[in-house]
Amino acid sequence: MQLGLIGLGKMGGNMRERIRRAGHTVIGYDRNPDVSDVKSLAELVEQLDAPRHIWVMVPAGTATQTVIDELGDLLEPGDTVIDGGNSRWTDDEKHAAALAIKGIGFVDAGVSGGVWGLQNGYALMVGGDKKHVEALEPIFEALKPDGPYGYVHAGRVGAGHFSKMVHNGIEYAMMQAYAEGWELLEKVHSVENVREVFRSWQEGTVIRSWLLDLAVNALDEDEHLEKLRGYAEDSGEGRWTVEAAIDNAVPLPAITASLFARFASRQDDSPQMKMIAALRNQFGGHAVEKKD
Amino acid sequence: MQLGLIGLGKMGGNMRERIRRAGHTVIGYDRNPDVSDVKSLAELVEQLDAPRHIWVMVPAGTATQTVIDELGDLLEPGDTVIDGGNSRWTDDEKHAAALAIKGIGFVDAGVSGGVWGLQNGYALMVGGDKKHVEALEPIFEALKPDGPYGYVHAGRVGAGHFSKMVHNGIEYAMMQAYAEGWELLEKVHSVENVREVFRSWQEGTVIRSWLLDLAVNALDEDEHLEKLRGYAEDSGEGRWTVEAAIDNAVPLPAITASLFARFASRQDDSPQMKMIAALRNQFGGHAVEKKD
Amino acid sequence: MQLGLIGLGKMGGNMRERIRRAGHTVIGYDRNPDVSDVKSLAELVEQLDAPRHIWVMVPAGTATQTVIDELGDLLEPGDTVIDGGNSRWTDDEKHAAALAIKGIGFVDAGVSGGVWGLQNGYALMVGGDKKHVEALEPIFEALKPDGPYGYVHAGRVGAGHFSKMVHNGIEYAMMQAYAEGWELLEKVHSVENVREVFRSWQEGTVIRSWLLDLAVNALDEDEHLEKLRGYAEDSGEGRWTVEAAIDNAVPLPAITASLFARFASRQDDSPQMKMIAALRNQFGGHAVEKKD
Amino acid sequence: MQLGLIGLGKMGGNMRERIRRAGHTVIGYDRNPDVSDVKSLAELVEQLDAPRHIWVMVPAGTATQTVIDELGDLLEPGDTVIDGGNSRWTDDEKHAAALAIKGIGFVDAGVSGGVWGLQNGYALMVGGDKKHVEALEPIFEALKPDGPYGYVHAGRVGAGHFSKMVHNGIEYAMMQAYAEGWELLEKVHSVENVREVFRSWQEGTVIRSWLLDLAVNALDEDEHLEKLRGYAEDSGEGRWTVEAAIDNAVPLPAITASLFARFASRQDDSPQMKMIAALRNQFGGHAVEKKD
Repeated sequence: MQLGLIGLGKMGGNMRERIRRAGHTVIGYDRNPDVSDVKSLAELVEQLDAPRHIWVMVPAGTATQTVIDELGDLLEPGDTVIDGGNSRWTDDEKHAAALAIKGIGFVDAGVSGGVWGLQNGYALMVGGDKKHVEALEPIFEALKPDGPYGYVHAGRVGAGHFSKMVHNGIEYAMMQAYAEGWELLEKVHSVENVREVFRSWQEGTVIRSWLLDLAVNALDEDEHLEKLRGYAEDSGEGRWTVEAAIDNAVPLPAITASLFARFASRQDDSPQMKMIAALRNQFGGHAVEKKD
Repeated sequence: MQLGLIGLGKMGGNMRERIRRAGHTVIGYDRNPDVSDVKSLAELVEQLDAPRHIWVMVPAGTATQTVIDELGDLLEPGDTVIDGGNSRWTDDEKHAAALAIKGIGFVDAGVSGGVWGLQNGYALMVGGDKKHVEALEPIFEALKPDGPYGYVHAGRVGAGHFSKMVHNGIEYAMMQAYAEGWELLEKVHSVENVREVFRSWQEGTVIRSWLLDLAVNALDEDEHLEKLRGYAEDSGEGRWTVEAAIDNAVPLPAITASLFARFASRQDDSPQMKMIAALRNQFGGHAVEKKD
Repeated sequence: MQLGLIGLGKMGGNMRERIRRAGHTVIGYDRNPDVSDVKSLAELVEQLDAPRHIWVMVPAGTATQTVIDELGDLLEPGDTVIDGGNSRWTDDEKHAAALAIKGIGFVDAGVSGGVWGLQNGYALMVGGDKKHVEALEPIFEALKPDGPYGYVHAGRVGAGHFSKMVHNGIEYAMMQAYAEGWELLEKVHSVENVREVFRSWQEGTVIRSWLLDLAVNALDEDEHLEKLRGYAEDSGEGRWTVEAAIDNAVPLPAITASLFARFASRQDDSPQMKMIAALRNQFGGHAVEKKD
Repeated sequence: MQLGLIGLGKMGGNMRERIRRAGHTVIGYDRNPDVSDVKSLAELVEQLDAPRHIWVMVPAGTATQTVIDELGDLLEPGDTVIDGGNSRWTDDEKHAAALAIKGIGFVDAGVSGGVWGLQNGYALMVGGDKKHVEALEPIFEALKPDGPYGYVHAGRVGAGHFSKMVHNGIEYAMMQAYAEGWELLEKVHSVENVREVFRSWQEGTVIRSWLLDLAVNALDEDEHLEKLRGYAEDSGEGRWTVEAAIDNAVPLPAITASLFARFASRQDDSPQMKMIAALRNQFGGHAVEKKD
């Protein structure tokens, strides 16, 4: 089938390639003319036969909003827009409603796979009406991994991004789990070979996983991670997961601890711990460390 | 080679079988005569050629201590005792020292595998002197999974149990990660098919793992886990992991949160939350829920 | 001076009384005619001399929004609206902007004091332009406690509610601190007299506080809190505090743990702990507790 | 009455002074001859009339153990030893048992008050047999604050130190509560006057406390705590509180979060966050920060 694909960065470019390898026609548009197949959104729309399917793969927030607004003006009733970016699930309902007024369908797709997706396939979590989702299944089939898993129609509009968001929240806590264990092993002298302990865990243990394999890769490159700083960004989905939990009164202690550990990792000096030091000094005369 | 194996319960019995399948001679002893190959520890020791290797696979604590004390009296210089139970790593040094006085070697082995071990092999994390560990490698080879991983000589005496303990700490937080994500998905109405979301994650995602596969198995048996109570035991190793972290001033927020969630799950009514309710009532006149 | 006061519930009614005792004129309006001084908002506005000051003390959200919208239609340039309810600070800027178009001033006031306020005074945290705030200081003086503290002009519009929100976040974690300590003391047999331990802490300790005094009051009424359920509501401000922290990448581990403990206290059975139980059963054959 | 007092450091020296002001006889011993009243423990014991009461106020652990062992040799049946240091409650039973064999009584006293104790009195939490505790009450009366609170006979041997330990655990979480709130207020631009917000909270709020007063003192000395590093020691009792909670399966999320925040504050670079950074780089190609 035909697909329009907007956004040909690290993710979008590889996705175009994987869909084409499956025999579909992909017309890609990007602001960067070196990678774009057409000169404008208008040209993209023009080159596709109706009913059109256009996959938006641009940064969440303003960029996605702008593209969806423009598509609302360019597309016709019966066309469908897929938002495959990392949009917040609360945006999906707004986008779906705005497009529905014009007779345009909307599907949200959470996409996992990162730099490994071209080779291994992209896991897809999709939300939307059955008729819109089913029409796109050839594309989902092309993108997903080869095995029996990796694609789900999770529910209504928003369910795709919501599921992907929770996936990322789980990912935060799993990474934190390995990281905490690694630090404790590195700290204790009786364990002389932490990297080999991690390597051994790749078979027969309860904690074997793809993330563990990646941890071993990382330790093979730099056994004690001495080249790195303990500094970790967060991408939004961890924050949204905690916010969704708060909205729903669901306790998420491990995922939230993982998010907060990242926040703390980016502080040169912790303001709250200054207050702790100040209070200890006030009541106990405990020494404080002064700034130079 | 020959191995004495003490403790033929769920774990020990299957381990005997797996080692025998690899062509070794195992003489097993258990207090239960129906499964025991010999009538007493003394007979076990008698039937083995020196230097003997005796694997202890009994509950951690008093039972292990008793067996090791008895072996100290029965064995000869040059023999080796392996503690494959879930002993606390701090016990290993004591056991090694007590046996070393008598010229008996000591190796600690953390064993992972549970009910799947006979079929898939047991992951082994081993601590001890090189000469003791190397002599046992045919047994470790027989027990471990078939692939390249699953066995490590982690370091000095205690390093095996310490590594296994950290493995379990990581396991706690990974399980908590999936559990938190599952609860949040179940709570949100747009996601209509949580079990299928979990199933889809088994390929192409960052969070694919053996534990995820097990979660899907569990949901296939009981889609919304309606037959279960939210009640979780803990087995000691999670607690020791947090204690080791405290001893070493290592922050473990996600693992500790996972341990505390289990503690809370076993309380019919939370005393601390009674105090919260009482305080809210005192300062704000907020209604409290009374016991019937 | 004159003040219009809208909302004469538990808080508003007592505030009217305290302001009147200080010699000011308060005209109160409430939907409940039994407590209201006037029959309508329009009558309230009519009876006040310009420039009018009208304090809104109704539930946050829709109720506050409705009243402010109505006041926007009824008031004149030069008048000022004070929102003393528990509004989210993000609403304050919207309200200020909407009223500013009509020349009406806006001040937000976070109010603490609960059922003790009439007697002890109300702590006030106020946000807004200097000229609006200064004109209201006779009222703030009347409401605040008698001592040198209890009132602050915290900053721009929104700063009052933001400060009050953080106050409540701190309150959550302080309550949790006492509650955790109380549960631990109650659990340990050597401490035979937990209530008296709490009572003794009221002088000479680092942890003496008004909340501690309230805890002692509560224990005097019910020594082991046996009449209560461990069930705690949360009022919104704890949630907003965590959300503000997430927006600002500030780690709030203790406050968030306190919020999550309340969420968990309201669950009859924990879905996430069902998943933990299910996973333990899958990999270890561990027994699970079934629902009856 | 007469009291022997061993250890005349910052705490012990002031306690000697406060007890003497109350009209009692205190003979103090310290290894530092400049502050000591006698030359040796033996001389101290000799100068006191039987039955003797000897208060030990030296660092917990080895120093306390050594002094108690020596007193066991020097004292007579009917004498009583009070351990007022920060000993772990688990040591108390051992000390009591060892002394009981010789007919010597033992009382454990948790002491709070720090540098403010001489002036305001010391809060005392005491454990031991009724007869031993009652004989010491004149001394407890002299040390405690003037008001009705500040002294409790908490229970059996160990209950004093256990109560003091929990006091410190609560203290950790209360400090963390204020510290988190302060950081969030400092981060948000609408709140222009964080110090004055804290000051205002000293009356009429739910969170007024002595620690809050100290926080205001600290901010008066250094409004934004710019002279300090965010570095906080921990003194043992926070760790023991968490360990006691683990032993008793009591969840302590806020207190534990506070302890871990201190651990993290003392790390120049977080090993666990290096692992997070490494994993993000492995699966997503996310940039990492390199060490210089």
